[in-house]
Amino acid sequence: LRKHFPEIVYAPGKTEGELRKIVHSFLARDLPLMITRLDPERAEGLLREFPGLRYHERARILTRERPPEGRGLVAVISAGTADLPVAEEARVAAEYFGNRVRTFYDVGVAGIHRLWAVREELLSARALIVVAGMEGALPGVVAGLVDRPVIAVPTSVGYGASFGGLAALLTMLNTCAPGVAVVNIDNGVGAAYFASIINHLVEEENGQKG
Amino acid sequence: LRKHFPEIVYAPGKTEGELRKIVHSFLARDLPLMITRLDPERAEGLLREFPGLRYHERARILTRERPPEGRGLVAVISAGTADLPVAEEARVAAEYFGNRVRTFYDVGVAGIHRLWAVREELLSARALIVVAGMEGALPGVVAGLVDRPVIAVPTSVGYGASFGGLAALLTMLNTCAPGVAVVNIDNGVGAAYFASIINHLVEEENGQKG
Amino acid sequence: LRKHFPEIVYAPGKTEGELRKIVHSFLARDLPLMITRLDPERAEGLLREFPGLRYHERARILTRERPPEGRGLVAVISAGTADLPVAEEARVAAEYFGNRVRTFYDVGVAGIHRLWAVREELLSARALIVVAGMEGALPGVVAGLVDRPVIAVPTSVGYGASFGGLAALLTMLNTCAPGVAVVNIDNGVGAAYFASIINHLVEEENGQKG
Amino acid sequence: LRKHFPEIVYAPGKTEGELRKIVHSFLARDLPLMITRLDPERAEGLLREFPGLRYHERARILTRERPPEGRGLVAVISAGTADLPVAEEARVAAEYFGNRVRTFYDVGVAGIHRLWAVREELLSARALIVVAGMEGALPGVVAGLVDRPVIAVPTSVGYGASFGGLAALLTMLNTCAPGVAVVNIDNGVGAAYFASIINHLVEEENGQKG
Amino acid sequence: LRKHFPEIVYAPGKTEGELRKIVHSFLARDLPLMITRLDPERAEGLLREFPGLRYHERARILTRERPPEGRGLVAVISAGTADLPVAEEARVAAEYFGNRVRTFYDVGVAGIHRLWAVREELLSARALIVVAGMEGALPGVVAGLVDRPVIAVPTSVGYGASFGGLAALLTMLNTCAPGVAVVNIDNGVGAAYFASIINHLVEEENGQKG
Amino acid sequence: LRKHFPEIVYAPGKTEGELRKIVHSFLARDLPLMITRLDPERAEGLLREFPGLRYHERARILTRERPPEGRGLVAVISAGTADLPVAEEARVAAEYFGNRVRTFYDVGVAGIHRLWAVREELLSARALIVVAGMEGALPGVVAGLVDRPVIAVPTSVGYGASFGGLAALLTMLNTCAPGVAVVNIDNGVGAAYFASIINHLVEEENGQKG
Amino acid sequence: LRKHFPEIVYAPGKTEGELRKIVHSFLARDLPLMITRLDPERAEGLLREFPGLRYHERARILTRERPPEGRGLVAVISAGTADLPVAEEARVAAEYFGNRVRTFYDVGVAGIHRLWAVREELLSARALIVVAGMEGALPGVVAGLVDRPVIAVPTSVGYGASFGGLAALLTMLNTCAPGVAVVNIDNGVGAAYFASIINHLVEEENGQKG
Amino acid sequence: LRKHFPEIVYAPGKTEGELRKIVHSFLARDLPLMITRLDPERAEGLLREFPGLRYHERARILTRERPPEGRGLVAVISAGTADLPVAEEARVAAEYFGNRVRTFYDVGVAGIHRLWAVREELLSARALIVVAGMEGALPGVVAGLVDRPVIAVPTSVGYGASFGGLAALLTMLNTCAPGVAVVNIDNGVGAAYFASIINHLVEEENGQKG
Ligand SMILES: Nc1ncnc2c1ncn2[C@@H]1O[C@H](COP(=O)(O)O)[C@@H](O)[C@H]1O
Ligand SMILES: Nc1ncnc2c1ncn2[C@@H]1O[C@H](COP(=O)(O)O)[C@@H](O)[C@H]1O
Ligand SMILES: Nc1ncnc2c1ncn2[C@@H]1O[C@H](COP(=O)(O)O)[C@@H](O)[C@H]1O
Ligand SMILES: Nc1ncnc2c1ncn2[C@@H]1O[C@H](COP(=O)(O)O)[C@@H](O)[C@H]1O
Ligand SMILES: [Mg+2]
Ligand SMILES: [Mg+2]
Ligand SMILES: [Mg+2]
Ligand SMILES: [Mg+2]
Ligand SMILES: [Mg+2]
Ligand SMILES: [Mg+2]
Ligand SMILES: [Mg+2]
Ligand SMILES: [Mg+2]
Repeated sequence: LRKHFPEIVYAPGKTEGELRKIVHSFLARDLPLMITRLDPERAEGLLREFPGLRYHERARILTRERPPEGRGLVAVISAGTADLPVAEEARVAAEYFGNRVRTFYDVGVAGIHRLWAVREELLSARALIVVAGMEGALPGVVAGLVDRPVIAVPTSVGYGASFGGLAALLTMLNTCAPGVAVVNIDNGVGAAYFASIINHLVEEENGQKG
Repeated sequence: LRKHFPEIVYAPGKTEGELRKIVHSFLARDLPLMITRLDPERAEGLLREFPGLRYHERARILTRERPPEGRGLVAVISAGTADLPVAEEARVAAEYFGNRVRTFYDVGVAGIHRLWAVREELLSARALIVVAGMEGALPGVVAGLVDRPVIAVPTSVGYGASFGGLAALLTMLNTCAPGVAVVNIDNGVGAAYFASIINHLVEEENGQKG
Repeated sequence: LRKHFPEIVYAPGKTEGELRKIVHSFLARDLPLMITRLDPERAEGLLREFPGLRYHERARILTRERPPEGRGLVAVISAGTADLPVAEEARVAAEYFGNRVRTFYDVGVAGIHRLWAVREELLSARALIVVAGMEGALPGVVAGLVDRPVIAVPTSVGYGASFGGLAALLTMLNTCAPGVAVVNIDNGVGAAYFASIINHLVEEENGQKG
Repeated sequence: LRKHFPEIVYAPGKTEGELRKIVHSFLARDLPLMITRLDPERAEGLLREFPGLRYHERARILTRERPPEGRGLVAVISAGTADLPVAEEARVAAEYFGNRVRTFYDVGVAGIHRLWAVREELLSARALIVVAGMEGALPGVVAGLVDRPVIAVPTSVGYGASFGGLAALLTMLNTCAPGVAVVNIDNGVGAAYFASIINHLVEEENGQKG
Repeated sequence: LRKHFPEIVYAPGKTEGELRKIVHSFLARDLPLMITRLDPERAEGLLREFPGLRYHERARILTRERPPEGRGLVAVISAGTADLPVAEEARVAAEYFGNRVRTFYDVGVAGIHRLWAVREELLSARALIVVAGMEGALPGVVAGLVDRPVIAVPTSVGYGASFGGLAALLTMLNTCAPGVAVVNIDNGVGAAYFASIINHLVEEENGQKG
Repeated sequence: LRKHFPEIVYAPGKTEGELRKIVHSFLARDLPLMITRLDPERAEGLLREFPGLRYHERARILTRERPPEGRGLVAVISAGTADLPVAEEARVAAEYFGNRVRTFYDVGVAGIHRLWAVREELLSARALIVVAGMEGALPGVVAGLVDRPVIAVPTSVGYGASFGGLAALLTMLNTCAPGVAVVNIDNGVGAAYFASIINHLVEEENGQKG
Repeated sequence: LRKHFPEIVYAPGKTEGELRKIVHSFLARDLPLMITRLDPERAEGLLREFPGLRYHERARILTRERPPEGRGLVAVISAGTADLPVAEEARVAAEYFGNRVRTFYDVGVAGIHRLWAVREELLSARALIVVAGMEGALPGVVAGLVDRPVIAVPTSVGYGASFGGLAALLTMLNTCAPGVAVVNIDNGVGAAYFASIINHLVEEENGQKG
Repeated sequence: LRKHFPEIVYAPGKTEGELRKIVHSFLARDLPLMITRLDPERAEGLLREFPGLRYHERARILTRERPPEGRGLVAVISAGTADLPVAEEARVAAEYFGNRVRTFYDVGVAGIHRLWAVREELLSARALIVVAGMEGALPGVVAGLVDRPVIAVPTSVGYGASFGGLAALLTMLNTCAPGVAVVNIDNGVGAAYFASIINHLVEEENGQKG
């Protein structure tokens, strides 16, 4: 059924043996491979056994190899260091799904001038993945600047009344700026997948027309 | 900035006088008009004063006139009678934003065969708005059947542990099926806007190519 | 003890008779008077009986008379129509406490250019009361633009996952921009009081010096 | 009082010494024994001391020996690897309580065709234990396919807005499909017990009649 | 698919016209009819138009006529006056689904001797529906007394920290007594349906054997 | 001010050095000493340095020596092994505060006959501390049996929807049986203190009279 | 069983007819009578029919007649007008249960000097019922001043982040001052009952001794 | 833009390498430096490499050197040992921002006389940072004693129903005493920053006048 995009393997809950078997079977069938939420220790074990793989440390993703250059731009936007693991998960996944990706990683709402400065560049993206923890206000502000789909990803980054990402999640759901839809807390992969569907749709309909 | 789509007027919190002034000013400038979340009583008052308007009762939306036939299909999917106000809000708004809309209004997960039966028809939509209250499982199941963007709208319909739509919202955020993004509870208009951006993007990029 | 500012009477939970007695006693002693959260029906009754009073409808506040022109500027900032009752509560109360007030009532984050345009004017305020419902992102953005105390007031305006102002409250508590402190949901009076303390402190210390 | 089924020993909160004493006393009286929620480290210690025991690793259950072949079919259904510990807890416990068990472990709602394929086979079960984390939509869909008691077990598997199983729990409580009742998050044993009561009831009433 | 039991019509969200059409169509096809959650005002309108119907006031259910005497006993147990609407909803629905019902309506845990006194009588039921608001402790205590399926129904009855039935719901999910499964807050119909499936299962398997 | 009872030292958040200084100063002034919530590792260090002390392992309390035999009975009641740490905290603290204590440690509501059996013995206590995790139903049932103050202590014992003791806390607050008041989750010491105040009050007033 | 105190009739959920029958039966048997949570409309109906009764408007309680002068002092303490309905419920109920009651109704923590001023007078009470909404800090401060049992009653008074009394409830459960136990939000009757048990205990033990 | 105060580096989420690079770059440019939320292990590594730095252990802050003596008094008030980490974070940060700081570290509400005793001394502060965990009642009581801005900092200190600081946060937001504004749970740095803005404002306006 779901034929457009290669598979995603979710590491948590799988034993080492199960992961090894999965990697082996993908390589044997020469399929693209992406294992997400993989901790460094288990990644190291797999890298030792299967030398062709590549581990994206901050994104905690294991892939087979560099994906081919994608088509159609997806922007990944975030505010600061702490949200990088989720932003990078989105970036690596989006590239894996065949998109071209551009990152904007230091444009938080507390220093709105930095976002303002890149405003024109944002307009070239077909879809924008906006990653934000703590207050989670960034997606709403971005959506006010562009008229492209903004996929908001709350992160569990924060402390106190951030309640593991709940604060950012609620902010994003309540944004006054239309053009925002939200995925689960920390779900960088889900945002990348959603952006890819949109990008793919454009390609497909263009193809039918062209 | 936000130039692609006509304006949306949100009725709650506005006085009768303010609404009247808004309608007058839109008509005077011959602009498209859509007032959302308008209760029947206040709608009646405006209809009496401005005879050209039209009130969509279940959607609780006041518009100026029938919008021109749209381009690019958007599907609006829901399970039953109780979710109709939100589904209709999405439908009316999507038409207002210039999309062609097709509705599937009786396809809940508790009778999965009905959804299964229309599976092929869903594939012709560029974006799918899936409206569900109570358990909110429908968007995830739909996303497993199609590879198009699914915009999930939880509704506040339900009782007991539905907690005003929270249960449906959480279900949708946690769906295992990739390809789902979520808007606020009861936010039919926001889902319609998001679908419209996607649809518009395809048109625009097609236009550039064609 | 609390000598700097005149008293505040909180209407909810008081009977008509109790309110009438309070008004009478304040007038008899020629004291300043402010009754908050007073519904129009009960206000009307009091206005009929005590003709010198004034009812601020949107703020739902009853005061004795226009307060004397205040000293030291306090800004009251909000995004749209729906938050006006709380913003107006803050404005009327701040004037009652002897501040000069300037309002900025249409500068939401979804249209960031409007806020950007008034940036210089905000700098002349000694304290800024920023009122926002739904996503509640405005105070953080304002605090990024000025280096004056920003008093954030979440409002209960919104629907769905706004949970009666909880979403806005959490956003404000989690803002990345330093310089923001938060009062209770809908607490316009509390924000006005806090701004007044700051303003008064400057006056007092200036006085001691000058 | 509660005579039908053998005892369940719940390991958390018990010291090593207490567990050893319990095992000893059960063996001495030649009673069936099942210790649940037992971590591998403590299990190992008991296995060393009492060689006849058996540890079910994924289920985290220690039993005395293989139970005799049960009567009356109970189905255990789940979606994927991550929910296996809870599904296995249900399976091992159901066998311990004297039921025949059949497992369906890869039938999530995101790939509804796999569930559809086994639909007929589900009908042979007297009770169905459906285990699901994250969105928790599986029990409702299963209940739409069969007219047998569906015992829903939410799991704490997930991240972000799954809130430790709360999302799945709410989904299951709000399901539109009648025929679903819910036990506590991760309570595989409780579901097995409930299924056993139903199964036993049929046996008993059959016996009285036959 | 779901063939064993007659249909349930859920009134909330349906217009008067829709309800009238539904009643008409059921009567025309001579089908059993049960409309739940129907307020007295709308019930009265329907009773005037369709004289053969019967309105169960406390249960807020409209049925066509007395159902035939059922087979297999279902017990409905509750503590006091305030929970009666939900208990009665369960009773009327269980009779509609073809069960024989016996009610125990004054046996709360605060006066445990009254429950103790009817202990033997409870044992004759095939399934026990236990309805409780506020603290919700009754199902756990009942399950400790009998070894039959206990279907727990939390109610929204209570105040303060009962949070609309949440307290009772959590109590029931956390009960230490095995043999309890829970349905949604106030869901008397769902509990009746679940009890009916169990009862029907016994009848069916008995039939096959006998 | 608070003269009746000796001091309580709360260990969490204190450094080793601070604890050592506290113990030293109490011993130097020959004061009674009770340190609560002390982990075994830190207890061991203090025991090595100050040989006269005593560590109550399950209660996680360090005291100076056996307190003198108390006057006036306090009962401590709980259901099972898992709640013992909190029940023991209450017992040790109640003895430290000069009460005579009797424990009833295996009387959960799921086996109501065991509680029923000790009913008469409970009546001799001046105050009853009832400790319960998970569903937390025990205090309400006890309060239905005796007409003495029941001090309910929810514990954080449980899993899933027990939410760290929240479920038990809500149950206790909502109990229908009058005569129950509640302290914080796991607050065995607080319950002991409250029981001691009651017991002391009786002694004091007796003394005045006698 | 529960013999010490006369009965309490809880009005919500009872029909007019049921209430009338209850009053009639109590009067016929010449029993003391207290109906709580009775709205003025229904009270008026009963007063018309049964002339000897008395309705306590703010407490929303109907009683038969003035109770005899009680023995042993119970203090009822609260901060302001808004909490009066709950404080009065506690006062009327405590008198009904045979206690002597003294009220302190204007001693909130924001003006700590007023509480300080009555400090000595508080010491004469055997139990103190402290009623507080909003922040709910009063019981902890009172418990720091006296060494008698403080029964804390959170009220649902407040707005915004008071969440229907949840804020006050949590404050009271977390108080650092030992000697506080908490009843349900708005449960003035429950607090009065608990205080009465304590007071009765003193009388009883005094009696046995004297 | 934000020119008044030196930068704050937030350690969580930064790698060792990133932190080292930041320290190096600050030292190279001879800028003031403050790294917050730095655990002792990572602090030790930086101290070894950059000998001029200073680590404030309880505050978990790394600074470059003692800041110059500040101007304008800020008070930091807390109740006990457990809140010291947050209180110290506030103190160190306030000194870093150029304020003079005075601490009051043993003045909890459970022993109100200690706070009462220092009442006069509090009046000399321009802003008061009040740090409190558990019940969080301290800021409201302080605000009742002084008419200066009270910045309330809830801490995550506590257990049970403190829910990670939520209880204290709600208490502070709901305080009846005007003059309190709240920052995030554990946000000592944010409170210090806010106090600094106020203090700076006084200095600045004084300067303009003088
Ligand atoms: N039903 C709705 N739900 C959510 N947002 C809405 C809705 N209707 C209008 N809006 C948004 O609210 C804004 C209009 O607010 P206002 O200027 O107060 O009328 C528009 O920018 C819309 O994006
Ligand atoms: N995994 C489990 N989940 C829930 N309840 C359990 C579990 N295992 C055992 N129990 C219950 O806990 C009780 C045993 O508690 P204990 O006497 O402390 O071993 C039994 O009555 C079981 O019903
Ligand atoms: N205001 C109240 N709040 C809490 N419980 C109450 C209240 N009034 C009565 N009750 C309890 O509710 C029971 C009466 O319920 P009922 O038999 O339905 O009238 C009594 O046992 C009382 O303990
Ligand atoms: N302890 C803290 N709590 C809250 N915010 C902080 C803290 N320390 C630093 N910040 C903020 O976090 C930002 C620094 O983030 P970063 O650039 O990732 O180091 C600064 O602008 C500070 O305002
Ligand atoms: Mg946009
Ligand atoms: Mg899909
Ligand atoms: Mg600023
Ligand atoms: Mg079914
Ligand atoms: Mg049982
Ligand atoms: Mg009792
Ligand atoms: Mg005390
Ligand atoms: Mg003050």
